Amino acid sequence: MKNLLYAQSGGVTAVINASACGVIEAVRQRPQSFAGVLAARNGIVGVLEEALYDLGAESAEAIAGLRYRPGGAFGSCRVDLDPFETHRHEYERVLEVFDAHDVGYFLYNGGGGSMLSAARLAQAADTLGYPLGVIGVPKTIDNDLFVTDTSPGFGSAAKYVAVSAREAACDVASMAGTSTKVFILEVMGRHAGWLAAAGGLAERTSGELPLLLLFAERPFEPECFLESVREHVQRSGHCVVVASEGVRDAAGEYLSVRQKSPVPGWTQLGGVAQALSLQVKAQLGYRTHWAVADYLQRAARHLASRTDVEQAYAVGRAAVELAAEGRSGVMATLRRTGGDPYTWETDATDLWGVADRERGLPDSFIREDGFGITEEARSYLRPLIAGEDYPPFRDGLPLHADLRLNLLPRCLPGYTPRPGDHKGPAGAGVVESGEREFGTSG
Amino acid sequence: MKNLLYAQSGGVTAVINASACGVIEAVRQRPQSFAGVLAARNGIVGVLEEALYDLGAESAEAIAGLRYRPGGAFGSCRVDLDPFETHRHEYERVLEVFDAHDVGYFLYNGGGGSMLSAARLAQAADTLGYPLGVIGVPKTIDNDLFVTDTSPGFGSAAKYVAVSAREAACDVASMAGTSTKVFILEVMGRHAGWLAAAGGLAERTSGELPLLLLFAERPFEPECFLESVREHVQRSGHCVVVASEGVRDAAGEYLSVRQKSPVPGWTQLGGVAQALSLQVKAQLGYRTHWAVADYLQRAARHLASRTDVEQAYAVGRAAVELAAEGRSGVMATLRRTGGDPYTWETDATDLWGVADRERGLPDSFIREDGFGITEEARSYLRPLIAGEDYPPFRDGLPLHADLRLNLLPRCLPGYTPRPGDHKGPAGAGVVESGEREFGTSG
Repeated sequence: MKNLLYAQSGGVTAVINASACGVIEAVRQRPQSFAGVLAARNGIVGVLEEALYDLGAESAEAIAGLRYRPGGAFGSCRVDLDPFETHRHEYERVLEVFDAHDVGYFLYNGGGGSMLSAARLAQAADTLGYPLGVIGVPKTIDNDLFVTDTSPGFGSAAKYVAVSAREAACDVASMAGTSTKVFILEVMGRHAGWLAAAGGLAERTSGELPLLLLFAERPFEPECFLESVREHVQRSGHCVVVASEGVRDAAGEYLSVRQKSPVPGWTQLGGVAQALSLQVKAQLGYRTHWAVADYLQRAARHLASRTDVEQAYAVGRAAVELAAEGRSGVMATLRRTGGDPYTWETDATDLWGVADRERGLPDSFIREDGFGITEEARSYLRPLIAGEDYPPFRDGLPLHADLRLNLLPRCLPGYTPRPGDHKGPAGAGVVESGEREFGTSG
Repeated sequence: MKNLLYAQSGGVTAVINASACGVIEAVRQRPQSFAGVLAARNGIVGVLEEALYDLGAESAEAIAGLRYRPGGAFGSCRVDLDPFETHRHEYERVLEVFDAHDVGYFLYNGGGGSMLSAARLAQAADTLGYPLGVIGVPKTIDNDLFVTDTSPGFGSAAKYVAVSAREAACDVASMAGTSTKVFILEVMGRHAGWLAAAGGLAERTSGELPLLLLFAERPFEPECFLESVREHVQRSGHCVVVASEGVRDAAGEYLSVRQKSPVPGWTQLGGVAQALSLQVKAQLGYRTHWAVADYLQRAARHLASRTDVEQAYAVGRAAVELAAEGRSGVMATLRRTGGDPYTWETDATDLWGVADRERGLPDSFIREDGFGITEEARSYLRPLIAGEDYPPFRDGLPLHADLRLNLLPRCLPGYTPRPGDHKGPAGAGVVESGEREFGTSG
């Protein structure tokens, strides 16, 4: 029997460790299928470096506690495998490491770019004659994986955005009489407005709040935006804006304020929220406040969606089942089987169908005026944020179980990437939230 | 018997409505002391405008539900009463409104600036011969009220900062191997570093995390800051910075990036977090991410500190007791009676002792290197974030009970401020978080 190796990749979420928990617990419950379970440190980088954690040393409680922990417990990476045709040595190294540690199954927990690496690896193992079951475990706050009804990580980030915007609306509503009238929350999503759409859930029904959403998919038109803000303030006294960081103007330029940095040669893109607040203040005279959620929206495990947690756990287990069944080259998926009440189950899909592809927000999810979501979007999104799953707290802080994280002794010589290796993200298609660059160097 | 009038003032918090709940429930439980309870819409503005809510129409459930609601349920204001000597008409109007509605007690729930208005009003009522019990109910996320051990609102904002920073630390720790190494969280506090100090609670013990705090009280020295960041990254692989929005350089200038706005004539101060990330990227080459919490840190009722909620409720009740006892010109306070275990009780202090004064962070709370908190600070802060008090949720969102908010019919002619009225904040001393100005007009 062989070992199963699990690794985390790309931007982490509030629930990626719940997937890890699902994987590890499922393996431990199948001693007839797997010799044991290992985890790579920092994703595929750890595989190449032969930095593998011996999870046998972790207690059942520590593994169970992964459910409540944000971030990636084993470390993640923004490094992908290059094409086999030109970088065969990478795959030979990976399989060499697998061979040295009796790895017969590789579970890669990541987004579209990671699924491309996984697809390439499955194909390479087949070509090189190494028996390997490669299974993808879906993950991304961007919700842009194809086929799967939703990507684990998104539901919790969506809940964070909706709850934060709703609470902030209470705040600005109280101040608007003589003070702040407009609050702007900037959310992640360079290319796709899924998280901006989640802002639409801040209200329980359409029109409950003076809410305005700005999508990456719609060109920003200042006059329309300002007119809509003005109308909300006239009608309700205040306005709450949820804006995607990926909003661009009609010319395709990211909306921001180009600023002169004190450092010669650097140009820095300011935030969308800040740029919008400038316009509102200048053109409408309203006092504004703005927040940039950034990592908080994907790290806020204290506010995770129970639905999301359960789904993240389920795809981890499902991936192990697929491996045990002898499947390879597939990703575990979620399938919606009922709308109201919401029901779902796990399934599988070919890795090549999801590798390096970005599913955008359907046009039918964006309201005609471009500033809100439709009822169709609401029906899709609402169940994903349902339920709470609070971590245990102690002395006011969430309790995160400690892992031993013992590295296995190395068997092989060290690994050095060759010039030209791992230079860019897998393929050209997927840019994950969080990859916003500052400055001109990598 | 007379009515008690309650009003909310200044920047709202996650728990100001818990104080409202304490006030209203206490009045309802004392039918032998008060005819009834009213609330002004938008603080003192509502009083001047004779916009008063008849709380008799609100159900017991709706009042109880105030405990869980962020923002100010009755509206707040950033308007204060001007000095009596030069603006006697304001006080005459206030008392005229009180007389028309049989108000014998006025409870003002706000910070240092609001306590000045309350002190002035108490004195004016005495001078003009109107029997009035004026009681202050403390509130501010800035924790800068004197005498009271802590200001309601602070504990929850502190919990928000600590939990958010701790969760974000898990995130950046997972990314640091090949991606983001530094995360910066900007928190409120123009003049005082209480919330930056709360960032120190992100770690359970000093040194647990690679944490760096920037206080408004310490001049920012780029070389020291960058060196400290570099050391953390060398030692731990990553660094988490919690920075007060009020950080200034050695010349006393707020740390920011002055930027050319697309709007002629406007200069806009960029955020502290953004300015810091620019420096880290430029000088150290580390990829950084940054978040600006803004209103989220004071609206996040879902993560309120149970200690803070109970204290906010208690000072509301205590203020009613003080009024019933015939006291006037005092503010309800919190007194720490034990450190470990933490115990507390309510007390009272003269309004003039807290009016228009800002209590800064004690020097002994800031670590010698300026980048962390001392054990003394930790002992003071830790109990304030203890306990959770989750609101009820439905369909993934917090449930906020609706109030009827019926306005009482007016008895008096309308009110128009005179030129020169309400031009600036009370006194010159108190600048509340949230008063950050954008642009040059009010």
